[in-house]
Amino acid sequence: MKLSQAELERFDRDGYLFFPGRFTPQEAGVLHRAAEEVYAMHRDEVWREKSGAPRTAFAAHLYNEAFRRLGAHPRLIEPVMQLLGGPVYMHQYKVNAKAAFDGEVWQWHQDYGTWARDDEMPEPRAMNISVFLDEVTAANGPLLLIPGSHKQGVVAAGHDLETTSYPLWTLDRETVTRLAEEGGCVAPTGPAGSMLMFSSLLVHASPPNISPFGRTIVYLSLNHVDNYIRKLQRKEWIAHRDFTPIDPLSDDCLAELAEMAKSAA
Amino acid sequence: MKLSQAELERFDRDGYLFFPGRFTPQEAGVLHRAAEEVYAMHRDEVWREKSGAPRTAFAAHLYNEAFRRLGAHPRLIEPVMQLLGGPVYMHQYKVNAKAAFDGEVWQWHQDYGTWARDDEMPEPRAMNISVFLDEVTAANGPLLLIPGSHKQGVVAAGHDLETTSYPLWTLDRETVTRLAEEGGCVAPTGPAGSMLMFSSLLVHASPPNISPFGRTIVYLSLNHVDNYIRKLQRKEWIAHRDFTPIDPLSDDCLAELAEMAKSAA
Repeated sequence: MKLSQAELERFDRDGYLFFPGRFTPQEAGVLHRAAEEVYAMHRDEVWREKSGAPRTAFAAHLYNEAFRRLGAHPRLIEPVMQLLGGPVYMHQYKVNAKAAFDGEVWQWHQDYGTWARDDEMPEPRAMNISVFLDEVTAANGPLLLIPGSHKQGVVAAGHDLETTSYPLWTLDRETVTRLAEEGGCVAPTGPAGSMLMFSSLLVHASPPNISPFGRTIVYLSLNHVDNYIRKLQRKEWIAHRDFTPIDPLSDDCLAELAEMAKSAA
Repeated sequence: MKLSQAELERFDRDGYLFFPGRFTPQEAGVLHRAAEEVYAMHRDEVWREKSGAPRTAFAAHLYNEAFRRLGAHPRLIEPVMQLLGGPVYMHQYKVNAKAAFDGEVWQWHQDYGTWARDDEMPEPRAMNISVFLDEVTAANGPLLLIPGSHKQGVVAAGHDLETTSYPLWTLDRETVTRLAEEGGCVAPTGPAGSMLMFSSLLVHASPPNISPFGRTIVYLSLNHVDNYIRKLQRKEWIAHRDFTPIDPLSDDCLAELAEMAKSAA
């Protein structure tokens, strides 16, 4: 699970690494079914678009077995421990849908901007690692990244309470344009099971999905245990307060669950 | 300029053909500068988004030299004459911007649906051929196509007068979903100068552009001269009334213009 020297250098330069098909179709299938289960739940953690379509299930690792296993999967936890230089805990866990036709925009932002301002996370010693549960294409609202933008530190932002149902510290257009003129703008696309890791300082966004195909991505936001948040203001299932280091499970933990489901069927 | 037998078969099956980089960067550059010129004009033919950003310049071949030449370029006219089986005239000519941050959606539609309902064009013996004036990527609002959807004939549609500044006959979600489950959904992406031709019955759309990069595409809608429109209801610069067959210029007509501009500078 170790990142190579070349990968470490690319992460340092670009602020992200993309691994198409890192999880098997079988593993991605288990997680996709889990997403359908949690989106069918009526709980505070499950947020919807203005249209009623699911948008985000927070903290799904606490109430779904497949997402619990993914939350300690060595393919996710170990490279992040390597990059952050030590044990990590789960700061945030999101299963983000981008519903067919109705999936809304996420405006340009840095995650650490929100974590610093809202949660008093001391340093950007935290990052995201995500798994695609559907094929992500140019058509269904891919994540857009500005390579190299993580080198800018925390960029000035305004609190957007209007665009969508989720409050977010977003960047102004002049800043986004300036960063993209330097670094460009990329949209990693790939099959279900692809894995994307990116710096908590990387500027990113995602467009609305007008296509007839939904797409769901799970995001783990992992934080170095020494860098735990100081301000417990947001809901505990949005900015977690359990700072216990994650002990990675075995590499076949999801495949095992798929086998169990198959033999039970 | 002739399409091969394999290309003809692919067009018949998918309803479109894509040729990345069919025009040189020099040719695309001449056209890009021409687009900036026409968008700076205040004329009835130049439409803007609600934000004021340019959206469409209609009939630009009638008031700009580069677009005049493109409107008779053999790389565009000859393959369309081949597919439609005879001489063609210009039914519509659009320079469509998708402005950075502000570029709005075009909902799912068939062009022939509009031409039949609004203009009484007798048959779908008409088609679009377009040239990218910027690189089109997953990030900046690419055109989305449903391959094979041109085999359905004219699909039921409702008149959308609200979503954007341009009235359009758009398809409902159930229909789009059904067609995409059969044919999928593709987003041709490529460098400035790429050429895309597609059936007037092909179902297509394009998402908003939230990226910091604009993208402009020129669309020629060419109609077989026998299939001229019967109802002259829309503005003459939206649904043209000059049914004169187009006589293709020479293949270097745009390169020549670029050279002239260079030696004049």
